[in-house]
Amino acid sequence: MMASERVESAIEDRRAIVNDAIAEQLPIRKPERLYSASRYLLDAGGKRLRPTVLLLVAESVSETGSPADDYRAFPTPHGESVDILSAAVSIEVIQSFTLIHDDIMDDDDLRRGVPSVHREYDLETAILAGDTLYSKAFEYMLGTGAPSDRSVAALDELATTCTEICEGQSLDVEFETRTDVTTEEYLEMVEFKTAVLYAAAASIPAILLGCEQETVDELHGYGLDIGRAFQIQDDLLDLTVPSDTLGKRRGSDLIEGKRTVITLHARDQGIDTDSLVPDDPSDAEIEAAVERLEAAGSIDFARELASDLIESGKQRLEVLPDNESSELLEGIADFLVERGY
Amino acid sequence: MMASERVESAIEDRRAIVNDAIAEQLPIRKPERLYSASRYLLDAGGKRLRPTVLLLVAESVSETGSPADDYRAFPTPHGESVDILSAAVSIEVIQSFTLIHDDIMDDDDLRRGVPSVHREYDLETAILAGDTLYSKAFEYMLGTGAPSDRSVAALDELATTCTEICEGQSLDVEFETRTDVTTEEYLEMVEFKTAVLYAAAASIPAILLGCEQETVDELHGYGLDIGRAFQIQDDLLDLTVPSDTLGKRRGSDLIEGKRTVITLHARDQGIDTDSLVPDDPSDAEIEAAVERLEAAGSIDFARELASDLIESGKQRLEVLPDNESSELLEGIADFLVERGY
Repeated sequence: MMASERVESAIEDRRAIVNDAIAEQLPIRKPERLYSASRYLLDAGGKRLRPTVLLLVAESVSETGSPADDYRAFPTPHGESVDILSAAVSIEVIQSFTLIHDDIMDDDDLRRGVPSVHREYDLETAILAGDTLYSKAFEYMLGTGAPSDRSVAALDELATTCTEICEGQSLDVEFETRTDVTTEEYLEMVEFKTAVLYAAAASIPAILLGCEQETVDELHGYGLDIGRAFQIQDDLLDLTVPSDTLGKRRGSDLIEGKRTVITLHARDQGIDTDSLVPDDPSDAEIEAAVERLEAAGSIDFARELASDLIESGKQRLEVLPDNESSELLEGIADFLVERGY
Repeated sequence: MMASERVESAIEDRRAIVNDAIAEQLPIRKPERLYSASRYLLDAGGKRLRPTVLLLVAESVSETGSPADDYRAFPTPHGESVDILSAAVSIEVIQSFTLIHDDIMDDDDLRRGVPSVHREYDLETAILAGDTLYSKAFEYMLGTGAPSDRSVAALDELATTCTEICEGQSLDVEFETRTDVTTEEYLEMVEFKTAVLYAAAASIPAILLGCEQETVDELHGYGLDIGRAFQIQDDLLDLTVPSDTLGKRRGSDLIEGKRTVITLHARDQGIDTDSLVPDDPSDAEIEAAVERLEAAGSIDFARELASDLIESGKQRLEVLPDNESSELLEGIADFLVERGY
């Protein structure tokens, strides 16, 4: 396994490249309030994991070295040149659009340590900023200069992904009022709401660079696997990390009665998960609830599920050439379930 | 000029075709609440003017006769076959997405005589329904089967159009708090908020069918011209049509203090347009305000502006072959400013 410092440093390098590209492609122009709101959450932070996955897949396929010299004029295995950075920006912009609209839907006040867009601006501006990022993402994906048959295939993947994200979010809302959600249904919801964007990030560079369908499909599967593991790890962190590291109250999913693979597993062991914590619980009551989940084997169940998904995702990377970029993609898979925040 | 009955009958024929296509391409499937909300406003009515313009341009260019036999396997001048109806559905679906989100932003209760989507369902579902229609529109535009270079060009037009609609809506919100908006700025806002979707509807069929750039550009201009005229006519109808025909209170723009070319013209004649009507005005007070606008020449100014735009739009149709479909496109231009509701 690759040393985690090298993986984190690779993420950091590409984060800086993606941030510069966002500033270049999404300048704050007229109408200024609209574009300033559209940039607000992008400027507030984020690890840029999805665009990093996209750039690493491109590097690996084209064997450019890691990082590549110029992502704007990126060599394909067929001798053309493609602006792969524009595709990376597209994926990050889609992620930002979904966060802005999700925060409105959940009426969340905070995101990345700053007020959510509808709090910092207003509801109208937040809806419009999300809608603007949505079409901009399609503009950026159209702006790679790839041969048009590959552009069409990449746009098809992007459009389908966006539809699935909406379906996943809708299922998430529906599940809040249902007591009979199965683990299988929950994982399907996670696939749509979260994992498909990792799948798009991993497969679209292969599409744009003209890889074989098998490569595209395996990379898509890698994205689905690590995306699902990412969500399960998020659910685990909520229970196992102290509030000050987490940036929100430890156990907030339990307090809000959110369903996760952990609570669904516990429910199937006969635990009444809706009364695991009382209203307005103390830290000791949260700790006691987590200990019950541990005793029921629910935390180990989630850890193993995440770990299996990561192994499955890494196996799929065998379609890639053996180089530093594909090693980093394995490292990112591990990073997703080893990160402590 | 073409008899208006023939124009209205042509609109009605294509409306039925587009409605069937929407039912076929956007079935209410799982998650059911999401898709039912996505269909709700589409099913509540609408003249389908934009997709009708799209189909008529396609008919005229390909000289298929009017209406064509099969819009799903539509002959291009280059011998291929294209699903032009899927592009028509795409444009109508974009229109529906913008209405759903606009109603949230304006907190409007009614649309097409039924509750707005966020009233009939809820805020979350309405935001998500709009977002779903957004990506579906791109899926439908990708589903025409046109050669990929033309698909890319059509998607480019669609994405740019969506960005401009957001910019136009943002300007509209900004103008509500400004007293120094010029007629030029107002018309630019109308171009972005309303006219660009007519321009997309008129130019995209020419792109997909492989017409010359000059034809595409002239059709784009036709759409901009008639779209601007359409908005000015809407502003005129608000002042000149009785409430029961209009479906909302006559003079509601005056009551809400909305800026239009009519009030901007009056302001430039020295009329204090913010106090044209008192709070909670009687019908007689509305009538008196309209008479003042008439006396200032503001109503005639708007009528002439709309009429000039229609003439300009019709002139641009000279790039099309002389056939029944292009005559109907002229007729639709006239219809937009002659309609009484």
